[in-house]
Amino acid sequence: MNIIDGGITKVKGIKGQGVHAGFKKEKLDFMIIYSEKICNAAGVFTENKAAAAPVIVDRNFLSDGKAQGIVCNSGFANACTGEEGIKDALFTADYASKKLGIKKENCLVFSTGVIGVPIPMEIMKNAIEMAVPLLDKSPSASENIAKAILTTDLVKKEITIENNGYVISGITKGSGMINPNMATMLCFIFTDADVPSSILNDCLKSSVNKSFNRISVDGDTSTNDSVVILANGLSNIKIDTQERIQNFKDGLDFVCIELAKKIARDGEGATKIIECQCIGAKSQDDADCISKSVISSSLVKSAIFGEDPNWGRIVAAAGYSGAEMELDKIEVYLGDLKIVKDGKEAGVPKEEARKELQKESIIIKINMNLGEFSSKAWGCDLSYDYVKINAQYHT
Amino acid sequence: MNIIDGGITKVKGIKGQGVHAGFKKEKLDFMIIYSEKICNAAGVFTENKAAAAPVIVDRNFLSDGKAQGIVCNSGFANACTGEEGIKDALFTADYASKKLGIKKENCLVFSTGVIGVPIPMEIMKNAIEMAVPLLDKSPSASENIAKAILTTDLVKKEITIENNGYVISGITKGSGMINPNMATMLCFIFTDADVPSSILNDCLKSSVNKSFNRISVDGDTSTNDSVVILANGLSNIKIDTQERIQNFKDGLDFVCIELAKKIARDGEGATKIIECQCIGAKSQDDADCISKSVISSSLVKSAIFGEDPNWGRIVAAAGYSGAEMELDKIEVYLGDLKIVKDGKEAGVPKEEARKELQKESIIIKINMNLGEFSSKAWGCDLSYDYVKINAQYHT
Repeated sequence: MNIIDGGITKVKGIKGQGVHAGFKKEKLDFMIIYSEKICNAAGVFTENKAAAAPVIVDRNFLSDGKAQGIVCNSGFANACTGEEGIKDALFTADYASKKLGIKKENCLVFSTGVIGVPIPMEIMKNAIEMAVPLLDKSPSASENIAKAILTTDLVKKEITIENNGYVISGITKGSGMINPNMATMLCFIFTDADVPSSILNDCLKSSVNKSFNRISVDGDTSTNDSVVILANGLSNIKIDTQERIQNFKDGLDFVCIELAKKIARDGEGATKIIECQCIGAKSQDDADCISKSVISSSLVKSAIFGEDPNWGRIVAAAGYSGAEMELDKIEVYLGDLKIVKDGKEAGVPKEEARKELQKESIIIKINMNLGEFSSKAWGCDLSYDYVKINAQYHT
Repeated sequence: MNIIDGGITKVKGIKGQGVHAGFKKEKLDFMIIYSEKICNAAGVFTENKAAAAPVIVDRNFLSDGKAQGIVCNSGFANACTGEEGIKDALFTADYASKKLGIKKENCLVFSTGVIGVPIPMEIMKNAIEMAVPLLDKSPSASENIAKAILTTDLVKKEITIENNGYVISGITKGSGMINPNMATMLCFIFTDADVPSSILNDCLKSSVNKSFNRISVDGDTSTNDSVVILANGLSNIKIDTQERIQNFKDGLDFVCIELAKKIARDGEGATKIIECQCIGAKSQDDADCISKSVISSSLVKSAIFGEDPNWGRIVAAAGYSGAEMELDKIEVYLGDLKIVKDGKEAGVPKEEARKELQKESIIIKINMNLGEFSSKAWGCDLSYDYVKINAQYHT
């Protein structure tokens, strides 16, 4: 498996474009990705009961495991917009699919932005008309696509790998309202491997559980979260043996985890990325709970922003996670430094511990010493800027 | 039921004192409350598996339903301090009980402050020696007691009521690490009503569920949370009929809810208190989940700090709470203003909605229109100062 340059259009048969259509004042705010050949497709969507209109529409469209195009705007989420919102999402799919010459049900629609305000549909029509003639395979098209889906994100997030003769490439957005079980995050993955729908579905669910469901920025789960994968088979590499399936899984895991970490690092106001590794847990659930609880703790996040090795907050977050725990068995490491032994201060000078926290990438490892299970989760620190961004976003 | 002036020493037979012993640089940091007569007693403690040493000791001490004195320091939490921590807590109870002339097992010990650092026991001995001779019933003693248990709290928190011939008085502390299911909060309640232990236990659990378990500052559950009630019976009013029990319950509910709201209002960095009322929920659990989810949402809290009527975040928080929800039935009110109808914008001009958020006390009401159950929860906004306080607390 090699990371390669170039974005989503590196995948055979995939072209696209991102444009500024006017949903937002200045930035790119609309994109289309299109596959020459119809794709097997799978999706994982938000569990929020206030699911946005496009989520409802796409779940339905994907029930046949097929898709050929993706349309996404930023600026308006089309969430909490009632029946009108559903109509708008269906109209968007209809309008775009006609211009693309594909079936309406194969044109997935996505939106991200402010909740509760209807999408201006005149802008949507113009956006589609503007973007379709510009679809191409150039690196700049890839770049525009990755930029057009961003909201408060500071950087575009994409990764492309070459894996035994086929390519997997993903782009994602997400920065606030990020919590395990999906968040205001969108992720679009394309591959030219030839993967049956059912395998695609299983692989995607498994990879999402190891990646996007293991990150948290603020504990808020969004109405619009969506991860989809489309496989057009144009590499002519069939994913049909156990070995090839495992290989594809490994590639997809890598792509999803890298993209998830990019979201955590670009968390609203974040200055550092935090990785929590829990080892020695009594069960997989316990390991998952503990690592998530630590990276979700506002007190841990604030302490790391302040570069303060306040390990008591880490142990407390493990303690209220719901997992089995014996306090006097716990070890906590910052990087390679063991700062807690037998549930107590290990005697590392505070200045040494503080140095670990001056890094931009913080690794917290907790050994529960109760079993064989382990898990990782990723988050970011909590800074003044998180508050600033979210106190002022709407207005 | 009347709110009356004066603090904990208004209860018959109760005296106490708060002093500066040197756990902290300048502020009062140690207190004792003592009852002339042995009390029936009950306690509710943190569910954090990293429970602090005093919590472990007090749970054990309270197994006979009796207590006569309370000793509490601030500055050090005596949490994650291993076997030594347990020994220190036991030594404190032993030393103080001898000076007070009561049984060691009737002397409850509490600590709040930094986790993981052993309590300086020389200071503890001095503190006990200093405070015991000063115990009295004066208003200033009450005030010193309420101040001595504070950490990052800005104000002391106490309430006293007279209820059909007896007094119930409580003090509390708590400001960060506050989350339902108890938090870095301590609450000590005394009454001169004559209440059997088993009834005291039931009443306390019920009141805590309606009050301290319905607040959140930051989602972090502390290692030291404790609420205890001591009843010495000196008013000679026996709580022995259904009517008197109900009356006592009402009084205790009132005391606990008022104290819990004071904690929410004094949340670290808070500029506003938020009350979320959920009505029309399908079950009690659903109503509880929804109101808690809304007041716990970082995005809702940030929006309220910014006085931004971003109601989509409120609906989204209800949507990921886990409760039953039909989006197109939801109504949301800010104060008396209906801002969401049928799950959509109700058409209130944004400036009018914003005015509601300029108040210091924000009431969010959500009608699920699915059933008859309701619940309330309290929290605070998320400000720059929360981050500031928690990035710098330890050092």
